[in-house]
Amino acid sequence: MRHLLDIDDLSTEELSELLATGADISKNKEKYMDICHGKKLATLFFEPSTRTRLSFTAAMMELGGNVIGFSDPKSSSASKGECVSDTIRVVSNYADIIAMRHPNDGAPLSAAMHSGVPIINAGDGEHKHPTQTLADLMTIQNHLGKFDNLTIGMCGDLKYGRTVHSLIVALTRYKNVKFILISPEELKLPRHIKDIITEHDMQYIETSDMNKYMQELDVLYMTRVQQERFVDIQEYLRLKDSYILRADKLKAAKKRICIMLPLPRLNEISKYVDDDPRACYFEQTLNGKYMRMALILKLLDEYKKDSSVGREIKNQAEPIMSFSKPLKCRNPHCITNKDDDLKQLFVSDDNKVYRCAYCEQEI
Amino acid sequence: MRHLLDIDDLSTEELSELLATGADISKNKEKYMDICHGKKLATLFFEPSTRTRLSFTAAMMELGGNVIGFSDPKSSSASKGECVSDTIRVVSNYADIIAMRHPNDGAPLSAAMHSGVPIINAGDGEHKHPTQTLADLMTIQNHLGKFDNLTIGMCGDLKYGRTVHSLIVALTRYKNVKFILISPEELKLPRHIKDIITEHDMQYIETSDMNKYMQELDVLYMTRVQQERFVDIQEYLRLKDSYILRADKLKAAKKRICIMLPLPRLNEISKYVDDDPRACYFEQTLNGKYMRMALILKLLDEYKKDSSVGREIKNQAEPIMSFSKPLKCRNPHCITNKDDDLKQLFVSDDNKVYRCAYCEQEI
Amino acid sequence: MRHLLDIDDLSTEELSELLATGADISKNKEKYMDICHGKKLATLFFEPSTRTRLSFTAAMMELGGNVIGFSDPKSSSASKGECVSDTIRVVSNYADIIAMRHPNDGAPLSAAMHSGVPIINAGDGEHKHPTQTLADLMTIQNHLGKFDNLTIGMCGDLKYGRTVHSLIVALTRYKNVKFILISPEELKLPRHIKDIITEHDMQYIETSDMNKYMQELDVLYMTRVQQERFVDIQEYLRLKDSYILRADKLKAAKKRICIMLPLPRLNEISKYVDDDPRACYFEQTLNGKYMRMALILKLLDEYKKDSSVGREIKNQAEPIMSFSKPLKCRNPHCITNKDDDLKQLFVSDDNKVYRCAYCEQEI
Repeated sequence: MRHLLDIDDLSTEELSELLATGADISKNKEKYMDICHGKKLATLFFEPSTRTRLSFTAAMMELGGNVIGFSDPKSSSASKGECVSDTIRVVSNYADIIAMRHPNDGAPLSAAMHSGVPIINAGDGEHKHPTQTLADLMTIQNHLGKFDNLTIGMCGDLKYGRTVHSLIVALTRYKNVKFILISPEELKLPRHIKDIITEHDMQYIETSDMNKYMQELDVLYMTRVQQERFVDIQEYLRLKDSYILRADKLKAAKKRICIMLPLPRLNEISKYVDDDPRACYFEQTLNGKYMRMALILKLLDEYKKDSSVGREIKNQAEPIMSFSKPLKCRNPHCITNKDDDLKQLFVSDDNKVYRCAYCEQEI
Repeated sequence: MRHLLDIDDLSTEELSELLATGADISKNKEKYMDICHGKKLATLFFEPSTRTRLSFTAAMMELGGNVIGFSDPKSSSASKGECVSDTIRVVSNYADIIAMRHPNDGAPLSAAMHSGVPIINAGDGEHKHPTQTLADLMTIQNHLGKFDNLTIGMCGDLKYGRTVHSLIVALTRYKNVKFILISPEELKLPRHIKDIITEHDMQYIETSDMNKYMQELDVLYMTRVQQERFVDIQEYLRLKDSYILRADKLKAAKKRICIMLPLPRLNEISKYVDDDPRACYFEQTLNGKYMRMALILKLLDEYKKDSSVGREIKNQAEPIMSFSKPLKCRNPHCITNKDDDLKQLFVSDDNKVYRCAYCEQEI
Repeated sequence: MRHLLDIDDLSTEELSELLATGADISKNKEKYMDICHGKKLATLFFEPSTRTRLSFTAAMMELGGNVIGFSDPKSSSASKGECVSDTIRVVSNYADIIAMRHPNDGAPLSAAMHSGVPIINAGDGEHKHPTQTLADLMTIQNHLGKFDNLTIGMCGDLKYGRTVHSLIVALTRYKNVKFILISPEELKLPRHIKDIITEHDMQYIETSDMNKYMQELDVLYMTRVQQERFVDIQEYLRLKDSYILRADKLKAAKKRICIMLPLPRLNEISKYVDDDPRACYFEQTLNGKYMRMALILKLLDEYKKDSSVGREIKNQAEPIMSFSKPLKCRNPHCITNKDDDLKQLFVSDDNKVYRCAYCEQEI
């Protein structure tokens, strides 16, 4: 059975197809409005996220389907200590497809291994959030018409922002993308993402100055610089304002720069930028709905051909034994450290680096 | 674009049309049951209110439409610090019409100024709750067949009860309505509402005795006398029972008196009154559903003709400057004191009294 | 009007009809998919129970109907102190049928007495949970094809488990059912349930050893042994593992034993049992959905013939007076001790034993 846990689950060709379906949906709503009549999406939000939940809900309803689910961990059986895979096996009896949000990295993999229906990862901890990346890609395509030969500015917290990591990795599929990485020292892009850029023969420049490369950017992707990420609060106070996008900073920018932000916004972008036609962040949420519609259609369609339970683990490695017991993942946020009975799985790459199969943290 | 923030947004003619549509819906449910197929209502409840939320939800479903939303502030993006207008701009991408409840006075105006779809105020703080007034009016019309020449008893907390204020103001549109204002000294109707009655050449009598005018009343509208409104708890304990409607008090009442109460009830009306055919408070909730259906239909219909974003501010005044900065509203519950970036707006009347455009508090 | 508060509300013939409808639904989904178009189920969950709520929701949607409601007591009007019967009278105006879960024993009876639409008890305190019993019965029927001449093992907490009590009582309708009651001393089946078995000329054996009768069992129904049920924690620690079903214990079991468990599971059954084809606990949740669909259809159908408000109280007794005031039920969890104004009602049996009509606790 086909699931979407990570944007890498889609080939570049499939991504193009989804983008084409998303575009078609945005233009021909009537054509799709009853296509999922009698189908149900379950939105299982083990942590709250109204925006993402409403987007999935609207998406399914605009396809003519129904939605069940929960929006709050406290009202779920999980609060009674049930493991994710049990919840999923039960909900598989109630819904045709599941979108799940979970505070623990890797929870969607543990779900996919036991689910009777397709799983969509709607965000797992600080790990992945592939449908946000779908929204981002559709927005870039709508405004710039292409992914090749672009200069993409990423600004703010590049260390922890899973949407940033995911979008960068997705863009390395295309040709000649150049990344301008704008962040304070504390929040620089992690080594392994920079390695992925380099492996694809692409360029990146790191800077702490938001203005320096402004005139070169085709896309400016903003993220929030949060106080809690800083050890030194003085450093935070000194820096925070330099990563806020105000209208005056855009004077140097291209006429067709695409300004993006994964909402909700606190103060990453001044409200005075909202009326600028280059501001795309509200449109991003609209595109998110269309891409989720396209995705739901695709997964339901593939399910008809293959409904086998389970999930292939690529590059699966032997269990790593330590004192004759299998080693456990040391990421405290990993689902293996929440659901006790969960079988520990590892993957290894060409360089014999071992990672937890759920959260991908290196062992 | 047309919104309903306050009952005053409707002309008397429009009110009559809505009441006629409500009556027609109550008699011909089949005619309306698929009329909103493919449409979505968003119920955004920034504070919980099950009754109102379920009423809107049932209303939209009985029109054949779908409902998305949240019922609890904690599971909303607002809990992450997002301003109301951002939430609304996003949800505009997911729904065709929005009903919102908010703890802050004036929040629906800030919503309407940026919304891409019609906004219905489902209660904002202690400010307005126009759809309750629509339910009240339909109930009076159903039972008494008219609004002119009625004697309306308002009993209990007349100081803080927004439903009372709103209903009185609405009834001053008609002819020769007389108000009997029954309340303890602490909870008397505010001056400015009494002024509105007088301006319309209508009469009111203030009394603390619930029995005194009972035989004159065509309507008796009960509200709750809450302990927290009293400075002197002894005073509360002495008074509280005199504002509870018991069956014996109704002996003097007219045969066709219409007994009303905005539910939920704690102990405002004894359960022994429930079986009295003159008790209309459960029917009020039914009428609320019908009037919400009529309203949704009207706003969706007008949206087709005018979908321009924004909201006209009547009698808008120049920003009031103080130390060269625009003066802020001093009502601590006003939305301008929650959403920092919100532009302060003022309105002024013929007497040059300035009020905050959001919460209508005098400056 | 017809409600389902207790499995005893259904005659054996009606139970057979429901099981037949449930089986038909499971095979012919298309036939039922629009049958409740335009109807609404209200799911009123005064305490959270995601699994049951989602099951009812999915059931109504698979019949083509809509669902409104709340999942959390805090977002309900009940949190404002409203009594159950007021909530129900209001929701009767919004929905065609109500499924309610409530922490207080007997709350569904107080609801049924005032409801304008059929009430389904979706669990009231430790009192009743009849739709779980419907799911259990369908599962046994699917796997064993009959209820007569079976040997049913009940294991774990037999003292407090309402699902156990309800299933035992339901099975005494059939012929020659034998019960193996496996539990620690502290958690033995209550006297009055054992009396019901005996009154029906059926046999039971009590044991604390899970293995002893394993090879005889046609059904093994597991429940959780909870620490908080024990006075002596040492006793709990000594015992807890003996009531966990592990794969090895099943070696002695029949080839067609039906292993059941009212989910969610903590550790009552090892995950290694999940792949055993005799494990029926996930299928139980599927059957629960089908039986709820059958039940909704039946109650909506009967409502067309009889929509009179109220509920007949069988064997109603005179109010019991004490100091010239009617005696109140002494069960602290009874709804009569939460909703103050609720009329105390009693029933008596042939032996002149008096019970509270709501919670059935002996006076």
